[in-house]
Amino acid sequence: MIKVGVLGAAGYTGGELIRILLNHPEVELVFANSESNAGNKVYDVHEGLLGDTELVFTSEMPFDKVDVVFFCFGHGKSAAFLKEYSIPKNVRIIDLAQDFRIKGDHDYVYGLPEIYRDEIASCKHLANPGCFATCIQEGLLPLAKAGLLTHDVSVNAVTGSTGAGQKPGATTHFSWRNNNFSVYKLFTHQHLHEICQTLNDLRPDSAPKFVDTLEEGFCADGLTVDFIPYRGDFARGIFCTEVVTLDKAVEAEEIVALYKEFFKDAAFTHYSDKAPDLKQVVNTNKAIVHVDVFGRKVVVTSIIDNLLKGAVGQAVQNMNIMFGCDERTGLNLKASAF
Amino acid sequence: MIKVGVLGAAGYTGGELIRILLNHPEVELVFANSESNAGNKVYDVHEGLLGDTELVFTSEMPFDKVDVVFFCFGHGKSAAFLKEYSIPKNVRIIDLAQDFRIKGDHDYVYGLPEIYRDEIASCKHLANPGCFATCIQEGLLPLAKAGLLTHDVSVNAVTGSTGAGQKPGATTHFSWRNNNFSVYKLFTHQHLHEICQTLNDLRPDSAPKFVDTLEEGFCADGLTVDFIPYRGDFARGIFCTEVVTLDKAVEAEEIVALYKEFFKDAAFTHYSDKAPDLKQVVNTNKAIVHVDVFGRKVVVTSIIDNLLKGAVGQAVQNMNIMFGCDERTGLNLKASAF
Amino acid sequence: MIKVGVLGAAGYTGGELIRILLNHPEVELVFANSESNAGNKVYDVHEGLLGDTELVFTSEMPFDKVDVVFFCFGHGKSAAFLKEYSIPKNVRIIDLAQDFRIKGDHDYVYGLPEIYRDEIASCKHLANPGCFATCIQEGLLPLAKAGLLTHDVSVNAVTGSTGAGQKPGATTHFSWRNNNFSVYKLFTHQHLHEICQTLNDLRPDSAPKFVDTLEEGFCADGLTVDFIPYRGDFARGIFCTEVVTLDKAVEAEEIVALYKEFFKDAAFTHYSDKAPDLKQVVNTNKAIVHVDVFGRKVVVTSIIDNLLKGAVGQAVQNMNIMFGCDERTGLNLKASAF
Amino acid sequence: MIKVGVLGAAGYTGGELIRILLNHPEVELVFANSESNAGNKVYDVHEGLLGDTELVFTSEMPFDKVDVVFFCFGHGKSAAFLKEYSIPKNVRIIDLAQDFRIKGDHDYVYGLPEIYRDEIASCKHLANPGCFATCIQEGLLPLAKAGLLTHDVSVNAVTGSTGAGQKPGATTHFSWRNNNFSVYKLFTHQHLHEICQTLNDLRPDSAPKFVDTLEEGFCADGLTVDFIPYRGDFARGIFCTEVVTLDKAVEAEEIVALYKEFFKDAAFTHYSDKAPDLKQVVNTNKAIVHVDVFGRKVVVTSIIDNLLKGAVGQAVQNMNIMFGCDERTGLNLKASAF
Repeated sequence: MIKVGVLGAAGYTGGELIRILLNHPEVELVFANSESNAGNKVYDVHEGLLGDTELVFTSEMPFDKVDVVFFCFGHGKSAAFLKEYSIPKNVRIIDLAQDFRIKGDHDYVYGLPEIYRDEIASCKHLANPGCFATCIQEGLLPLAKAGLLTHDVSVNAVTGSTGAGQKPGATTHFSWRNNNFSVYKLFTHQHLHEICQTLNDLRPDSAPKFVDTLEEGFCADGLTVDFIPYRGDFARGIFCTEVVTLDKAVEAEEIVALYKEFFKDAAFTHYSDKAPDLKQVVNTNKAIVHVDVFGRKVVVTSIIDNLLKGAVGQAVQNMNIMFGCDERTGLNLKASAF
Repeated sequence: MIKVGVLGAAGYTGGELIRILLNHPEVELVFANSESNAGNKVYDVHEGLLGDTELVFTSEMPFDKVDVVFFCFGHGKSAAFLKEYSIPKNVRIIDLAQDFRIKGDHDYVYGLPEIYRDEIASCKHLANPGCFATCIQEGLLPLAKAGLLTHDVSVNAVTGSTGAGQKPGATTHFSWRNNNFSVYKLFTHQHLHEICQTLNDLRPDSAPKFVDTLEEGFCADGLTVDFIPYRGDFARGIFCTEVVTLDKAVEAEEIVALYKEFFKDAAFTHYSDKAPDLKQVVNTNKAIVHVDVFGRKVVVTSIIDNLLKGAVGQAVQNMNIMFGCDERTGLNLKASAF
Repeated sequence: MIKVGVLGAAGYTGGELIRILLNHPEVELVFANSESNAGNKVYDVHEGLLGDTELVFTSEMPFDKVDVVFFCFGHGKSAAFLKEYSIPKNVRIIDLAQDFRIKGDHDYVYGLPEIYRDEIASCKHLANPGCFATCIQEGLLPLAKAGLLTHDVSVNAVTGSTGAGQKPGATTHFSWRNNNFSVYKLFTHQHLHEICQTLNDLRPDSAPKFVDTLEEGFCADGLTVDFIPYRGDFARGIFCTEVVTLDKAVEAEEIVALYKEFFKDAAFTHYSDKAPDLKQVVNTNKAIVHVDVFGRKVVVTSIIDNLLKGAVGQAVQNMNIMFGCDERTGLNLKASAF
Repeated sequence: MIKVGVLGAAGYTGGELIRILLNHPEVELVFANSESNAGNKVYDVHEGLLGDTELVFTSEMPFDKVDVVFFCFGHGKSAAFLKEYSIPKNVRIIDLAQDFRIKGDHDYVYGLPEIYRDEIASCKHLANPGCFATCIQEGLLPLAKAGLLTHDVSVNAVTGSTGAGQKPGATTHFSWRNNNFSVYKLFTHQHLHEICQTLNDLRPDSAPKFVDTLEEGFCADGLTVDFIPYRGDFARGIFCTEVVTLDKAVEAEEIVALYKEFFKDAAFTHYSDKAPDLKQVVNTNKAIVHVDVFGRKVVVTSIIDNLLKGAVGQAVQNMNIMFGCDERTGLNLKASAF
């Protein structure tokens, strides 16, 4: 049994993680830490767990009793936490925030299993990818690796309200968001960092480099990912299209074959022969990708559940890989479908 | 032209009132007061007004320039405001809060036009009914007046999220409310005060009295309105059923005739021959009522838009009556329908 | 392993059943029958199953290869099917339609495990309860058994759109139903048959009898269940309140204790100390009940997922009981929560 | 008074048109034709009109009694109708279908008032633009006219379910569409015809020509509009982004000024200084546009209500122009806002 501790357990990702771990046959959930909810039943906060567990939030952090700890903090707080607290060397860390996703002076491995499975299997510390970043990368990985990304990429992605977290605000107010639609962080979303890092990592030497426009702006030399994020009026899921311009027109079959080959061993990423709809992945750890080809233009559709493949589902998938379990353990989730 | 000032103009009801007044042919909107938004364009807060008006919120209250002022404060703040500020005697007041709905040491008339039109026409100060209270009363008025309310009344009413106002909170968070359903203030909603006041006011002497259970509890002598309010996952509207038990079985036609007769001159309350659906009234000032009869049981369905007939639409209807305009002026609103 | 066949596998309940059975550790899904979709991949119809199974719908019915067959037909078709086809005696039948829920000239056991577990464990043929019927009964069972149902019961229950099945129509059109609310089959819903049957079955001899108003009308002698069904603008779930009038006022604690005791061994029915919201049960097999007491009035809130505890989840729960599995096997579903 | 007849009056656009015309001070609605609903009250079909009109659908077409007739047929039926029936020469026609939007052997003027007001004012026959086409064109007109469209344009646009019309189907089933998101007619939507026609009509001789990819495919010489239409899970509205690549980087102010100048006299198209959200236009005849600039990339956001500015609102706007009324007459609609 893998002994697990959860920090930041009272937030949206914390709750979703607990919902998965309670049914994971190889996991013993040792503690769920929340300063503000210490002493409360977990089901008082994550109310869907009534009847499933009598676990109580704790303000303690008994790291000596666990094999792995999940950080479900808000962005920026993971690094701050590690400055203040010391975690035993033998305890693995899976961080759901963005603090260690960009390579630097740390040993965190970027947890995208479809390309970094080996590094994940042997790592102690893992930075779990962002939700938009996961969805967009799943759509672009095969083309990136094949060196076919040679022009700016046009990305449009709609996210559900759970992507904005638990704290209520103007753009998550039901009266505003219901039947509404809007853009935000247009061309400047922070996930561009990790997306560009991966695309540049994967590309053959012959392919041009992507510019991190957040760092270098839009006039720097290189390709750009022109990413428009939208707020959708649904709770779960990310629906993404990526339009890629090739150097010359190709047959659709060729591109489809590339995708099928790339994902043939993927545990959760599936190629769909027809354009998917978002609810195919809601409440599952799947990513579904599909391509259409028009002359030199390839249009990829990629979809995930932002809280699962885009957050804790992928985190548990990574945990499974890190601990040598079958990758799907605890993740055979019934799609909600409706 | 009726010169109008609005206090509390930055909230939901304030916005809806401005949206109506701007198109009201007999109204000049003189000022829209909001302390917190003073200096901002009205369309910066009520964004749907972009292109319709360049009006700016003001922190001033030039009561000498208006004929009537609307109080769009939160509950309890109207009375507090009047203790602090003095409003010229010739300026009429239409208060949307609950502060003066119950008769007492004040001269506010309860603004339900279907029964108090004459009092409204001659009043200086008006207390606009609550949203649930309006919907439930529209459903019960004909039976109350006919003395047919002789047993406890069972009321179930679902409200949209705009009923909870502009301030974001846990139960108006989109991630929570979307596709959700819940009860609140079960059997203890504050609108019971005004509902019981009206029912007792209307009833013939022969009919039994209703108990205000909020004041006297459920063991006091008299009839009760057993009201379950629900939070629906839509933005606008109240859908209500009222089940009334008669002393003996009657023909449906008799009850239907009673309703048609009662509302035959009502400007905005319509009897529907078939069970209505909520969207028939959304974005209109209408109330629609319908009855079904099963033996001794009469089931009334009554629906309104909580922000219009349940708040500012009725307030403008009352203003029209107070100033001698046609009751429908400015209120011929296109239903959103979808 | 329990070998399972599914008839009517292309509808909503068929799809939900397959989604559960594929992850059920004691089940081998032998065939999924659908005349109209024979030859198609199951995931072509139930698209959320892409990547989970390569199963193909069949027009065949190899009953000799299965231990149990689920009927996911529309109402009335189960009885018709059995007149045309013969099912081997050793094959158990779980019928999701209403054809055999009322006792009569057949050997089907009514599959409500909270009261009929023993009969279920030993039956060959099972009639799975209706969705509304399940939710309403979960709310009323403890009071019924205690003989406390001595006055008419007022029931209001809202259902999601999946309750209306797969065939598109006017009241399931998104443009109509979105942000809408309505009643249907007011006081005349067909589930009243099975509800009254159970309430009369459970009641002590001293308690009055319920009238099946669909058969006998509203003027017959006896108690009535005054049931108003509503169409909600969500996809999954039933939210129900039942108002019961007692002969005299009681302490809330007494009623709460009754409920906790009644459901203490229930695998999926949980008493909640606070009023629940619908999403606590969505995508789970749970029922949650809660009571409030006001003088002589008891208000019960009961909620389920109409497709799970209200249909195939309860059907699988019944199958587990019939085959001696732990009742929860295959039903530890992650709540969708959002 | 303008005497108006409506053909195809029982559909979504027919209903919306009637809802507007009933409150239009210069219009007398003479007849509402519907073969299938002849003899029924209009409010039996368009239920939101209960209490507003006692008008009855007719199967007759008294063209001699009207000044203008609106065709609210499905696409393709207008041309067919005109082959079968003869309309007096003095009766103007406003066709909401796509039959006459492309220039050819007919005298229909394309009714986009922001560029063709003069032609509209003097025309007898008018082809009302498509909903997507209107929204996309509002976003691109200023750049097109300035000759700044010199590269392929990337368009992403989400539509509400009312865009799919009244007939229920799989992708308008509430259970499917609620909380869902999907693409359709990707890169092949029929509105590309009229969009390309306008862009080519407006462009200076120096600017390159757009290819109608539906006719000539994606390998033809010229610029393309790469249009991805999405199905959103809301009822009304189109939210569109258009990404335009310029030949060289420009200051944002320059582009903003271009837009403000272009639309300065537009009755319903407004430039917003901040990114708009869809509900700002829902239930109004407005278009709102906004631009952001990143190096050489201009990102335009444009939004409309698909049934109003995208259909009958624009049709009435065109009628006003054709009959010399103020353009806004009858179109000062209260935004639903929520």
